[in-house]
Amino acid sequence: MNLILLFDDDFISDSRVRLAGRRLQHVRDVHRATTGESLVVGVSNGRVGRGTITHLADDAIEMDVVLDRDPPTPLPLTLILALPRPKVLNRVIAGAASLGIKRIVLLNAWRVEKSYWSSPRLAPENLRTQSILGLEQARDTVLPSIELRRLFRPFVEDELPSMARGTRALVAHPPATEECPRNLREPVTLAIGPEGGFIDAEIASLERIGFAPVSIGERILRVETAVPFLAARLY
Amino acid sequence: MNLILLFDDDFISDSRVRLAGRRLQHVRDVHRATTGESLVVGVSNGRVGRGTITHLADDAIEMDVVLDRDPPTPLPLTLILALPRPKVLNRVIAGAASLGIKRIVLLNAWRVEKSYWSSPRLAPENLRTQSILGLEQARDTVLPSIELRRLFRPFVEDELPSMARGTRALVAHPPATEECPRNLREPVTLAIGPEGGFIDAEIASLERIGFAPVSIGERILRVETAVPFLAARLY
Repeated sequence: MNLILLFDDDFISDSRVRLAGRRLQHVRDVHRATTGESLVVGVSNGRVGRGTITHLADDAIEMDVVLDRDPPTPLPLTLILALPRPKVLNRVIAGAASLGIKRIVLLNAWRVEKSYWSSPRLAPENLRTQSILGLEQARDTVLPSIELRRLFRPFVEDELPSMARGTRALVAHPPATEECPRNLREPVTLAIGPEGGFIDAEIASLERIGFAPVSIGERILRVETAVPFLAARLY
Repeated sequence: MNLILLFDDDFISDSRVRLAGRRLQHVRDVHRATTGESLVVGVSNGRVGRGTITHLADDAIEMDVVLDRDPPTPLPLTLILALPRPKVLNRVIAGAASLGIKRIVLLNAWRVEKSYWSSPRLAPENLRTQSILGLEQARDTVLPSIELRRLFRPFVEDELPSMARGTRALVAHPPATEECPRNLREPVTLAIGPEGGFIDAEIASLERIGFAPVSIGERILRVETAVPFLAARLY
């Protein structure tokens, strides 16, 4: 937790917050902070600054908060992600949030196992928790939007064209002959397939609406490695 | 498993292998392969090709192997990594192996918790298993060397200078003013600190032997996100 993310409910006056639970525990056990010390804080979807501890007890911590700067610049990258296996979903979401990705669509695909869609990890509260962990790690405050789409074709045909409009639309596809571009200055919509990849018909659907299949070389990466790798490669 | 990694022990003749255990299971349950089908295989530290299934039973699989190409080019990156917490160590190693990193030093640092050094995950067999998982994912065959160094100063003063000679020596350091370089064509030795970062004295030790502190921006990434991010950024 390199930043303590604050929410409206935490404020007991204009510039004072009171925290309990996970954040209290973290400040006591990991930061081992004491009264008078100041820690990096940020307001959910708002600014970043310092919180000076005015009161530290077993049940709550109070801080005086000064917010004096903007959060880091978002990554202009929309991620269309074939739903990863539940085991890695949490860290994929936290990782993407830490990288500054602000829009994620979790999409069905032929090679996504049906059972993944009944994972409790897809509950909005869990996706929000993982996003918060990623933001706290990266000292960001702006929560990503995460949408679930259980039908590939209607999403790709009806929603994705307008979502990708005005952006460079790419699909990571290991057999592609075109190399993934580098150091872009434009927004990107990037589709990443499931383990085993998108099937040919899915690639064809994406190509029809303007997505270019691109490769990052011979190596096939796991989704949790591919997302940070591609984020760094594109920008 | 996008490649089945073969070892000398697997060969029952010059071009035929017999596999049991985890690889047999994977071919049957995940690939759902049948006799006559061919799968991507590679020989440990050797070439890549196809294995055609000649025999498939409950206890073993046999394949005729043709090796006709080299494994992917290694990444010319030596990773000096403050020992990560055991919980993430396996995926950091598998991830680094999948990226083509061939030399990893796990190093102590002030902010590495002492208890991490007694983790059973540091056993050579486990590090080897994680490396193999990464290679199988990325269709590579060349095992990384992984070394453990429990003393920061002797390693940095006595061993690291010759290890880093002829390479661009960088230490990822969020407060650094210099930006991490991109698209390099030279080998790099990259040091990555623990959670909370290297302390000033450690950065100073690294600078004394020629390491340049570089930053990837305001965001602080977890080690499992930072490694693929920096690998893509540097090359």
